[in-house]
Amino acid sequence: MLAVLRLSHRVFRDKRISTHLALTARAFGADEFHYTGEHDTHLEGSIERMCEDWGGNIKVEHIESPWNLIQRWKDLGGTIVHLTMYGIDLTDKLTELRRKDKLLIVVGGVKVSGAIYELADYNIAIGNQPHSEVAALAVFLDQISGSKARKRKFENAKNVITPSEEGKIMEKVE
Amino acid sequence: MLAVLRLSHRVFRDKRISTHLALTARAFGADEFHYTGEHDTHLEGSIERMCEDWGGNIKVEHIESPWNLIQRWKDLGGTIVHLTMYGIDLTDKLTELRRKDKLLIVVGGVKVSGAIYELADYNIAIGNQPHSEVAALAVFLDQISGSKARKRKFENAKNVITPSEEGKIMEKVE
Repeated sequence: MLAVLRLSHRVFRDKRISTHLALTARAFGADEFHYTGEHDTHLEGSIERMCEDWGGNIKVEHIESPWNLIQRWKDLGGTIVHLTMYGIDLTDKLTELRRKDKLLIVVGGVKVSGAIYELADYNIAIGNQPHSEVAALAVFLDQISGSKARKRKFENAKNVITPSEEGKIMEKVE
Repeated sequence: MLAVLRLSHRVFRDKRISTHLALTARAFGADEFHYTGEHDTHLEGSIERMCEDWGGNIKVEHIESPWNLIQRWKDLGGTIVHLTMYGIDLTDKLTELRRKDKLLIVVGGVKVSGAIYELADYNIAIGNQPHSEVAALAVFLDQISGSKARKRKFENAKNVITPSEEGKIMEKVE
């Protein structure tokens, strides 16, 4: 079980970044994508349409605050991983994290509350440089699954790509 | 030598995605970031300021069209890698690509010309699902360097993070 929590979404400024986060979550194996901040029906609709066309069924949910979700996750014996450039590098904890069967990955927004650092079981950096929450999430999820998740088959897909060295090959399944 | 070429940047719509791409390029080991589309002094300024604070000196350059850069790269014996969800998976070519010492990584914008697929020596997918050019670039660069590039030291950095399991530790070097 793999869930992503994106903090403090802002409809106008973060529209594309949060969409990229949700699509990255879906492509690299997450089952759920929760977000706090502003409720964004456009974001939810675009991920839903993506699932209709490309298969799978990641659950996308807006929540008022992160605390209940984090508490629920802890009650169920899940592990909270906060991705932050201040954390310790993924490599140092990769073997340990791969053994967990219930991960909630928290990715920050504008300003992350200190409480998140404290509640997290792991504060993990994908390098200690400023870059992108999308980059951090992608590398984290890809390494956790040993690149397997991104290659899995998506159920009920209408669009199916055949990998090609030279161009675009896509089958439309109706 | 590692360069990234971002196609068809649009100042308004792509501002944050292109900034994330440039920061990802920098953090994961690229020496140069070129982009076509609209010239964006704001994007260039923000990467420049980032280098002043966090060190290193990735070169950011707007170019009118991709063709001269690609041709120059080919003339110098470089390899062109186009990241696309239609390509073949990175895993299949990773060993081969790690041996190249001069890579130009092309990441698409709105609509990628068919000529890019043809001119590229490799059309590489990070999974065959729609997600994010930032995610694709991050996973590609991280795997090419075996996660080493993101852990390297940046020269002349004013901000230096000490990795921490619990909070934020950053030194300001003047």
